[in-house]
Amino acid sequence: MFSKMKERKMAEKLDVRTLQRNYEDYGEKEVTVGGWVRSIRNSKNFSFMVLNDGSFFTPVQVVFSADKLANYEEISHQNVGAAVWVTGLVTLTPEMKQPFEIQATEIEVEGPSTPDYPLQKKRHTLEYLRTLPHLRARTNTFEAAFRVRSVAAYAIHKFFQERDFVYTHTPILTSSDAEGAGEMFQATTLDLKDVPVDEKGNVDFTQDFYGKPVNLTVSGQLQGETFAQAFKKIYTFGPTFRAENSNTTRHAAEFWMIEPEIAFADLEDAMELAEAMLKYVIAYVMEHCPEEIAFFNSFVDKGLIDRLNHVVRSDFGRISYTDAVAELEKHNDEFEYKVFWGCDLQTEHERYLTEKIFKRPVFVTDYPKEIKAFYMKLNEDGRTVAAVDCLVPEIGEIIGGSQREDDYDKLLSRIRENGMDESTYGYYLDLRKYGSTRHAGFGLGFERLVMYLTGIANIRDVLPFPRTVGNCEL
Amino acid sequence: MFSKMKERKMAEKLDVRTLQRNYEDYGEKEVTVGGWVRSIRNSKNFSFMVLNDGSFFTPVQVVFSADKLANYEEISHQNVGAAVWVTGLVTLTPEMKQPFEIQATEIEVEGPSTPDYPLQKKRHTLEYLRTLPHLRARTNTFEAAFRVRSVAAYAIHKFFQERDFVYTHTPILTSSDAEGAGEMFQATTLDLKDVPVDEKGNVDFTQDFYGKPVNLTVSGQLQGETFAQAFKKIYTFGPTFRAENSNTTRHAAEFWMIEPEIAFADLEDAMELAEAMLKYVIAYVMEHCPEEIAFFNSFVDKGLIDRLNHVVRSDFGRISYTDAVAELEKHNDEFEYKVFWGCDLQTEHERYLTEKIFKRPVFVTDYPKEIKAFYMKLNEDGRTVAAVDCLVPEIGEIIGGSQREDDYDKLLSRIRENGMDESTYGYYLDLRKYGSTRHAGFGLGFERLVMYLTGIANIRDVLPFPRTVGNCEL
Repeated sequence: MFSKMKERKMAEKLDVRTLQRNYEDYGEKEVTVGGWVRSIRNSKNFSFMVLNDGSFFTPVQVVFSADKLANYEEISHQNVGAAVWVTGLVTLTPEMKQPFEIQATEIEVEGPSTPDYPLQKKRHTLEYLRTLPHLRARTNTFEAAFRVRSVAAYAIHKFFQERDFVYTHTPILTSSDAEGAGEMFQATTLDLKDVPVDEKGNVDFTQDFYGKPVNLTVSGQLQGETFAQAFKKIYTFGPTFRAENSNTTRHAAEFWMIEPEIAFADLEDAMELAEAMLKYVIAYVMEHCPEEIAFFNSFVDKGLIDRLNHVVRSDFGRISYTDAVAELEKHNDEFEYKVFWGCDLQTEHERYLTEKIFKRPVFVTDYPKEIKAFYMKLNEDGRTVAAVDCLVPEIGEIIGGSQREDDYDKLLSRIRENGMDESTYGYYLDLRKYGSTRHAGFGLGFERLVMYLTGIANIRDVLPFPRTVGNCEL
Repeated sequence: MFSKMKERKMAEKLDVRTLQRNYEDYGEKEVTVGGWVRSIRNSKNFSFMVLNDGSFFTPVQVVFSADKLANYEEISHQNVGAAVWVTGLVTLTPEMKQPFEIQATEIEVEGPSTPDYPLQKKRHTLEYLRTLPHLRARTNTFEAAFRVRSVAAYAIHKFFQERDFVYTHTPILTSSDAEGAGEMFQATTLDLKDVPVDEKGNVDFTQDFYGKPVNLTVSGQLQGETFAQAFKKIYTFGPTFRAENSNTTRHAAEFWMIEPEIAFADLEDAMELAEAMLKYVIAYVMEHCPEEIAFFNSFVDKGLIDRLNHVVRSDFGRISYTDAVAELEKHNDEFEYKVFWGCDLQTEHERYLTEKIFKRPVFVTDYPKEIKAFYMKLNEDGRTVAAVDCLVPEIGEIIGGSQREDDYDKLLSRIRENGMDESTYGYYLDLRKYGSTRHAGFGLGFERLVMYLTGIANIRDVLPFPRTVGNCEL
């Protein structure tokens, strides 16, 4: 890049990624690399600099000396974090830990750093780094986490696009409450200091931007279904919101979700799709981020690589909720919350099923209708619905889905039973009137997936700018 | 798909896409296709059905007759929009307009439709179809538009990921006003009927979800820059919001934006990136959606294919704002708004430049600082900034970008000059303190791009669920 440098330098300009991946091709050649100083270690008349530009996990070692650099003093006293351009000879060092180094012939400061730079070479806690959302991506753990996040996001697009799914941007602002899924944020242009009221004393939303109350979406599923009934196979991938006052390591108020929806398809088809997708994304990230995954396996979660390989190689198990409850009841003495038919499964139960009973990922299907959403297809038994949760070791639920109720009358009954506002769901009922099809889909919380891929335990550390109750920095 | 069908049928189940792309391989073979009835034309004892499943633009023709189908009466009286499963022999018809048809041996109704189905075979106006956001994707124009949208989105990811850019999810909810770019939506969990106030009579935001006022983002650029200073090359692709009370064919309140940001790079690098990206996406969509583009070229915008090819083959022009103004002033008699140095260029000027003067896309650079944002790099002349707009024929501006001010003191002055709240920009100033680099980036409105790719003139028709002032359906 940088065109002025192009004019001046004859050396080939490279990203660290290109150099690291192909260093053997550059042996004894002159190259130019721009990057940030991770550390400088000075000996008498020569120094070592660890340099990275963020394009690759492994940094480059630069050797520079007073006899080659006129500005040796200036460079050897740069602070950690300084941005520099290094030109020098790539020297292969097969006997050393790092297979090559750059012997600098010229180093130029692009932008210095100050001694108060908060990321010194010592190891910082993740908690401390959370207070530096604008800088923490420059540390090993976050650099690795956010690159895995990027590559995983691409793997998801690639998986669906190669299968001709239509990527559908369902709206963020919505006038329909997707499923009563939880507390919502309201979006408004009204002046909160002086909210207009009508003659009855209610908020006068005719003066708001949309002329009515509007919320931030909790799920794109219902709108996604309208597109699945046109394109057969669609997926969403976008931000969703929950204004829940919960302060856990697994919940954020703003997070990204993937929601595929397939028509002419049933619950079994949705499970096959979910299994194929998870395996694809895991395999893709392991192939494209080997350095990052190795780092997480060494420093964050020792069992990570084994676990990921195990998921890719396993056939996922299948069990009905009813059978799962029967199995779990045998171990009720081991649980804090006792299991019984009709209960919502807790994480401890989910993990027991997948870790102890199945020892691999498992789909649990056909839950009691009382604990599931109104749009799920009622089974013939009249008491369960065609829901599915996918449970994985160490996490529990990672995917939740269902076949959707495709019968107009049954759906209408469920809407009424749940005391929901029928008029809001006219569009959704229409889908059951005009060429209704058996159809199914699921939701995957993207951050849960990234946590699973990295072993990172706190959702705040896989979100570039985490939003949780009381926290909205930048 | 659909597993119960799998058990019963021996015929291979196919998407319409697979069949259309490979019909020669299926000659005289039996296949099963699920889809929706676009039309049925009945003759005596036999009928033609046009069937599509939304996986491909071109539908399939099905022939069925009373002597082969026991349920001929039922099928021949299906309404438009009905969902059916068709099994039959693929018969090649090289002498006909469509190169093959399916001669049905079995047709099963998956879900009927009713006679009041709003999408009858006749042509509907786009305005009317906007009143049916849950159904319009089933019509030719919208099916084509939303598939192009999906494929273009993927092309963007593919372009950046192949160049090792890190996809960065900048936040939707933000406590910083990105650039004073426009009116914003506020997100809150306060009860609007009873907004709490503190002792001074101000809104008591300590009771709001985040403990402070929070808005929907207008741009991810500033947060994106923090990641570019870690990863060197990043891009965002997500929803952004403007609560502007404007009712035009080119503005929506919720839209998707792509914002790449590159470090160790200057304005020239950003222009090279923008040009490569536009050409890549256009070429990718033309290659992967030839049927859709041909449809738009025939029915929406006769010059479309020529124009797109022209962009792919052109070297984009370059001109400074100052020189552009000098050129345009010669034609001031042709403009509604007269051009002078210091004025903001209007669409009529932009189009004149790209259509009449350059006859190809053109980058206009180095605008007066007064008409551009605070973060743009001040040029050495002290009166212009390193800004760039990319103008394309028929549209005008499609991309806006700049090199960013990387000097701490100059940036601080600009923040103060603009009367902005300095304390909010501490994180942004830090980037100029700790290893500052020359860096640049740009923003591409995704809907503008889809309009350009399809010739569709109204932004409401390229957004799956358009949000504009007074409109937020579903």
